[in-house]
Amino acid sequence: MTPEALGSRRWVIPEGYIPPGSTGPAPQMSSHETACLLNTGDADAHVEITIYFADREPVGPYALTVPARRTLHQRFNDLIDPEPVPHDTDYASVISSDVPIVVQHTRLDSRQAELGLLTTMAHPIPE
Amino acid sequence: MTPEALGSRRWVIPEGYIPPGSTGPAPQMSSHETACLLNTGDADAHVEITIYFADREPVGPYALTVPARRTLHQRFNDLIDPEPVPHDTDYASVISSDVPIVVQHTRLDSRQAELGLLTTMAHPIPE
Amino acid sequence: MTPEALGSRRWVIPEGYIPPGSTGPAPQMSSHETACLLNTGDADAHVEITIYFADREPVGPYALTVPARRTLHQRFNDLIDPEPVPHDTDYASVISSDVPIVVQHTRLDSRQAELGLLTTMAHPIPE
Amino acid sequence: MTPEALGSRRWVIPEGYIPPGSTGPAPQMSSHETACLLNTGDADAHVEITIYFADREPVGPYALTVPARRTLHQRFNDLIDPEPVPHDTDYASVISSDVPIVVQHTRLDSRQAELGLLTTMAHPIPE
Repeated sequence: MTPEALGSRRWVIPEGYIPPGSTGPAPQMSSHETACLLNTGDADAHVEITIYFADREPVGPYALTVPARRTLHQRFNDLIDPEPVPHDTDYASVISSDVPIVVQHTRLDSRQAELGLLTTMAHPIPE
Repeated sequence: MTPEALGSRRWVIPEGYIPPGSTGPAPQMSSHETACLLNTGDADAHVEITIYFADREPVGPYALTVPARRTLHQRFNDLIDPEPVPHDTDYASVISSDVPIVVQHTRLDSRQAELGLLTTMAHPIPE
Repeated sequence: MTPEALGSRRWVIPEGYIPPGSTGPAPQMSSHETACLLNTGDADAHVEITIYFADREPVGPYALTVPARRTLHQRFNDLIDPEPVPHDTDYASVISSDVPIVVQHTRLDSRQAELGLLTTMAHPIPE
Repeated sequence: MTPEALGSRRWVIPEGYIPPGSTGPAPQMSSHETACLLNTGDADAHVEITIYFADREPVGPYALTVPARRTLHQRFNDLIDPEPVPHDTDYASVISSDVPIVVQHTRLDSRQAELGLLTTMAHPIPE
């Protein structure tokens, strides 16, 4: 239960895609992409997400706070300011924080009756 | 068959979620989250897991031993002391060991008839 | 929204396999392997992919451009010059760029009615 | 198409489990665990795999060769010397090579009618 802030200040996720449809009860079974953020330190983490696209300039920053000693599982579906993340569109993301955090990427795809799941650690940028 | 202890002493898994239901025969097909720990060294690994939440203070440590030259595939579902890990709740974990180990994270989701699987290496903290 | 080029100039993906069949509407649900490339920098990335096989010499380079501040989710199915990537065949890939990028690997397998998904970061080669 | 040997000489995979059953046509749809090995260099890679268990001493080495500039997608199901890898049993593996290689881990689980897939890079041990 160390208060040390573990991880890196910048993380990259090249894969992003919110499936255009879902089956099953919302919101648990809604198709979604999630960035799981963990802040193990004693100071709140002020996080900014920038979204990159195939054919236009990046959008952001999307501002989030991960309180000290807390995890935030942020659905990209729920990012709306400055603008919603489009569905059925390839995107990528860079996640920056003022203190070290750790970031993991997960997608649940329920376009078909049986869900698909994928996950990976985001790519940490060395300090 | 080297006796050298490979890996790192601290690992982070930001994603944690035990699905609230299962289909199929237990325990093989029960929805579960697992931390796969490998201790390649000649000394037992004394491991402590701390669980982080979105809205309350971390819980732990959960104490485990991975004997020398053994692997332990520990289901988070089975962690009960100091308290069970809640289902249908976002969490994250930090895994600390007194000797280097390697940690991989896996989830089997059998809420629907056909299982979903995900895995990733945990994020190692450099010594 | 930093213009800094993040990542590494070389990435490795040992796993490659384009399933021989699909179910569901094309192209979204076609079985495919994808390399998700993100170029966060202000200069276009000139990328070369080399494909390795089990039983013959490597093929390539396949040339791609990822424009500045853009992501490209490139299906291996769509690589045709110098030759198409064969289906139902084990392969591997090395991705080289003249500027740092980040690479993530994804497969959608729709041979059966319900899709299978997998992803991982490619393995970065330190500069 | 560089002849440089990329990667690391040792890799660790804490997760290992060959499901006890399959559905669908063999061998493509048989439940299996695979280590995908890529040798980008100009010298053959002589590889040794050691298998670790929960409750007995490690077994190995299993000897493989990955020829120069080739990939080998080795199913753990097919490792038989010094002894077959048991099914329905937790295991882990360490993969050692005399030259740098890159290793990725994949499982296809076809116990149920629709397949489950997972993958991750193995954990590289720094030289």
